[in-house]
This record gives sequence, C-alpha cells and structure tokens, in this order.
Amino acid sequence: MNIAILFGGSSYEHEISIVSAITMKKVLKKSQITYIFVDANREFWLIDRDKINSKLFSSGEYKKGRKLTLKKGGFFTEGMFGSKQVGFDVALNLIHGRDGEDGKIASLMGFFDIPYISPRIEASVLSYNKLYTKFLAQSLGVKTVPYEHLSKSDPRTIKTPLPAIIKPVRLGSSIGVSIVRDESELAYALDVAFEFDNDVIIEPFIEGVKEYNQAGCYTDRWELSIIEEPHKEEFLDFEKKYMDFSRDSQLLAADISPELTQKIQETFKRIYDPLFRGSIIRCDFFVVNDEVMLNEINPIPGSMANYLFEDFEAMIWRLAKSLPKEEKIAVDYQYIHSIQSAKGKA
Amino acid sequence: MNIAILFGGSSYEHEISIVSAITMKKVLKKSQITYIFVDANREFWLIDRDKINSKLFSSGEYKKGRKLTLKKGGFFTEGMFGSKQVGFDVALNLIHGRDGEDGKIASLMGFFDIPYISPRIEASVLSYNKLYTKFLAQSLGVKTVPYEHLSKSDPRTIKTPLPAIIKPVRLGSSIGVSIVRDESELAYALDVAFEFDNDVIIEPFIEGVKEYNQAGCYTDRWELSIIEEPHKEEFLDFEKKYMDFSRDSQLLAADISPELTQKIQETFKRIYDPLFRGSIIRCDFFVVNDEVMLNEINPIPGSMANYLFEDFEAMIWRLAKSLPKEEKIAVDYQYIHSIQSAKGKA
Repeated sequence: MNIAILFGGSSYEHEISIVSAITMKKVLKKSQITYIFVDANREFWLIDRDKINSKLFSSGEYKKGRKLTLKKGGFFTEGMFGSKQVGFDVALNLIHGRDGEDGKIASLMGFFDIPYISPRIEASVLSYNKLYTKFLAQSLGVKTVPYEHLSKSDPRTIKTPLPAIIKPVRLGSSIGVSIVRDESELAYALDVAFEFDNDVIIEPFIEGVKEYNQAGCYTDRWELSIIEEPHKEEFLDFEKKYMDFSRDSQLLAADISPELTQKIQETFKRIYDPLFRGSIIRCDFFVVNDEVMLNEINPIPGSMANYLFEDFEAMIWRLAKSLPKEEKIAVDYQYIHSIQSAKGKA
Repeated sequence: MNIAILFGGSSYEHEISIVSAITMKKVLKKSQITYIFVDANREFWLIDRDKINSKLFSSGEYKKGRKLTLKKGGFFTEGMFGSKQVGFDVALNLIHGRDGEDGKIASLMGFFDIPYISPRIEASVLSYNKLYTKFLAQSLGVKTVPYEHLSKSDPRTIKTPLPAIIKPVRLGSSIGVSIVRDESELAYALDVAFEFDNDVIIEPFIEGVKEYNQAGCYTDRWELSIIEEPHKEEFLDFEKKYMDFSRDSQLLAADISPELTQKIQETFKRIYDPLFRGSIIRCDFFVVNDEVMLNEINPIPGSMANYLFEDFEAMIWRLAKSLPKEEKIAVDYQYIHSIQSAKGKA
C-alpha cells in the first residue's frame, strides 16, 4: 500500500508535525510512503522519502523539489507536457493543530475526492474546539470535568475555584495552557491564553488526578490500543510533548482493573462511533472515584499514537479499506427542466 | 467591486443555487460579477456573466467554457503560457446545502487565502447540522423547540407526542422533512428522512405557530433586515421554496410590536456574534407566548435574503471590507533548530 503522508501546515504545531511525519518512516516499514509537505504558506511539495529530515524544512531546501497542485482526484505535478498525478492509495492527515485538526484538510480531501485517514469535517470541528467537545460529550452522556467559558471581550473574572487550569479552546499540545494556583496569577494566565485564541475554558485543576489515554479506530472491527497511563507531570509542556511525537516503540499497558478498562473502552467507543469513522484518535480520560471523564480528544495524535498499538501498520491498512464514503448526489436538472417547460407554456 | 459568485456544488440544492446565482445579477447592479460554477463533479468553471441562464447548466454546455484550478490566492485558468489568475475582490459563497453550508467551501477559501463572504468552518458545521444547532443555542442561552435525536441504527420509536415533524439533521430546503399526524405515518416518514441522512431530529409540530425570519450581518455596524413573517403553509416544500431563491423585490416588514422586534433582534445578535462574522445569515424563529425560540439557522439563505434589506448591495460592499482575518502563524523552526543543536552536542 502506498500511503501519502500530509504534514506541516499553517499551524503552531507545524514543526512537531514534521517530527511525527519522519517518525512514520520507522513505523510504516512495509508500506510505500509518499511525503506531501504543506509549507507554512500552504503550498504543497512532494518530498523524497530518502531525503526527508528536519533540516530539509528548516533550511527551506524543500523548495527545490516539486510543487504540487490539488485537483479533482489527487495531487498533480505541472510540467511542460501537462499535469501528472502523484500516485498513492490513501492520504494520512498528520497535520497537528490548525489546518489538520480544524477541518480544512478533511474538507480539501473530501471535496477533491481523495481517500483519506483523518477525522471528517464535523468530527474535526467538534474535537478541535474544547468548548464544542464539551457539548459533544454532554450529548453522548459522557462526563467531563466541569468548566466555564470566557471570551476575549468578557470581564476577566472566573467562578472556578483555584487551582484552575486555563486553556485556549482551539489549540493542542498544551500551547497557551497555564495552571493558576493563586489569584495573582490569573490575569497573566488569561493574557497568555488569549494570545492564542479568542475563547478560553477554565476547569478546576484536580491535584493528583489519574489520567489514562485510549487510542483506537473502527475498521471492519473495533481496534483499541492498550490503555496508557501518561507520565505524571503537572501537564506536558511543549518540549516534553515533543518527545511524544517522535515515539515509535511500544509501551506497557496501564495496570488497571478489568472493570476500569472496560469502562474506558466503552466510553471511547461511544465518543468514536460514528462521528470519528475514518480516523485514529486518542481520547484522554480522567478517572475520579471510578468515574471516567473525558478530558480531551486528540483528533490527530502525535505520531498517530502508533506506540500504543501492537501492529499499527496492519491496522492502517485495514482502516484504508474501511473509510466512510460520502454519499453520491445525482444532479439531473429536473427542477430547471420543469421551470423551463413552465416558462415555455406561459 | 468585483464579486465572484460561487454556485452549484455537489448538493441536493445544486439547482436552486443556480437560481440564486442568476437572481444576483438583478440584485448586484453596480458590481462586476465573476461567476464561478462548481459542477456536480466539483470542477470549477468560469461562466460568462452575459451568457448565464439555467439552460447553460442543464444542457452541459458550460463545459465548453474555461475550467479553473484553485491555488494559493485564487482561481486560475491554465493555458499554453502558464496559468492566469481570475481577478476579483471577494468571493460570495452561494452554494446551498452540501459543500457550501457544511464547511467545505469555507475551508477551501480559508486554506487558499481567498477573501470570502460565507460562514466560516465552525459556523458552517454548527448550523448545517440541526442537532449541533441545538447545542449551540443551548450554550448561548437561546431557547429552541424541544427535540429528540434518532440515528439510523436506533429503534424506530419516538417519545415526542404527535403531531411531530421529522427532519434529517443535515439538509436544507425541507428535503426529507415530513409532518407525522398519525402513528401509522411514522415508519414511512422516518424511512424518507433516513434516505437523506443517518441522523434525524424529531420535534413537536406546533399548530399555527407564529414564525418570523430575521436576516443580517455585522460589517462595521449591525445590519439587520426587516423581520419577515413567511407565508403560512404547513411548511415550505421544495417547489415553493424554489420561488424564494429567485426573489429580488423587497418585502414588507411583519406587523409586530416594538418589544417583540427587539427580542428577535437581540436573539439574532446573540447567535450571530462572533461565530458568524463574515457571513449574511437568516435565522428563523418561532414565537410562542411571546417567547422567541430559534427554529433554524440558514447559513446561506436563498438569494442571500436580499429582498429583506433596503440596500443589499451596499451592505455586501461593506461586509467585503469587514471580513474576519485568520491569524498569521509564523513558523521559525526554532524547535527543530534546538533539536539539531542538541543532537550535534550529543
């Protein structure tokens, strides 16, 4: 199978997307990989698999390569003798943050009829925005941490008791996130968050909360990863998270009871199906008094959370064969014909 | 001002989008119009303003014209001597239903950095899906008609008392909508709705409910239309609605109290701002016992609801100058540089 990896994007996570993409080379060993780079200016470039390394991008050297045009059915190189399609079986959306997670790449792939692994548009919009994720969870009967929402123009006061965690609603990888322990830190934390977004949510920071991550997808069957207990830090900052995006060796499962495992798996399935069909996502859960609460949905997890699966590559192949198909709409101009004949009679 | 009208699309409302687009010629008299047709196959075509008529499309004759490619910054014709950009100041998304209202066109315009009048991605997804519109209204403290949600795989029983109205969650123009007055009609009505969507919502059908429509936008000021009381029919079916899409003469305002006018206007503003910035939408409200309830949001109303505004064209010009801008993200490869230097030291 030939997998086109889309990476980069106009995103705060552009650089870690490059790291994720390079990691895929070690993970997708049996597949052919077609690397398609979306530069910060949102132009598409075909990258040679053998030459890919981080310096190619930071130096701007990728611009010596072939530029691509997106058209009906795929990506094309344009030359003297017309355009030539870049061949691959499926596109894998590996753009973290804006463009990749906000629905733009899903829209582009869907509109131009390119088979793709990624959350679809609705799934992207609901998971990219932490406020909408709360709506979604509520509608599915999935518990979340209580929260309040503040817009840039609102008064800078909060009702959530301290310590609280302040998050811009639309960013991943902990960018702009702060923990506020004292009233005096609030104004600065809100300023930081509003640097990145016009909306923030505020949640109580639960000291020592148990956190578990479950990744998975639905192919022709449920494919759930082991459950990971991420390393205990207050939260992962950008540098530490960076390491996650380059991870390619398998982890050990969290040591939890079969009952809790089942609860986490059931909650994952309820969130995933059917909204996230066609994608591999990671849900991060909090567990408080045996109650499973959704913390956040990672619609494009770092290096696709490959390290949580036993045979990630085989799963990708199965997923590529189980993608949701958009309904075909036949346009027969029946209405226009009937107006025309009505006008003819008038 | 040169306005590019995007119309057509892979949508059940493809044909009424053509009607909307042709109507714009009578409405935008002082503007230059660049017609860009998205055919049912999602290919882009430049249509001559002087030759546009419905037969051009139903006959397939548009294919004799110039095909366009979407690239960074705009639409291009490709020829022997390279590609040439189609010049315009702003694109107006006039694609009703799928593609236009589901976030795809917004994504395409946003990604390729083309100034455009349309709901943005999040606004599209939340208003295109009637279930998500309920979540949105709830989060804004806007009342709606009570509802229940049924997925295709759910048992075909409902709790809503009859008469009830059955709606596919994702379609406009009353396609697939039925009123069920008797238990015996339910199975068929659900079958019809599930023909068009995997999810439906069911609401009590309120006999003789007062309905009012408010259109508007925010430019450098609030620009609210007159409030329309639509013609009393049980609901508008596809053929009747068709007439709405070709309307170009101004209506009279509904005869309602200043208090109710103000309530409707305030509710419209609460829904519109800031999510719908950059677009002209029409909100359809029910009024029961002086309480204003959101019925639905029309993110791309028929012929842009031009007939509800005193000077629609001047408003479009102001809106084109007040479009929300996506934040620029600078990619400086700071993280990649720091890894490279760390590796160098190791």
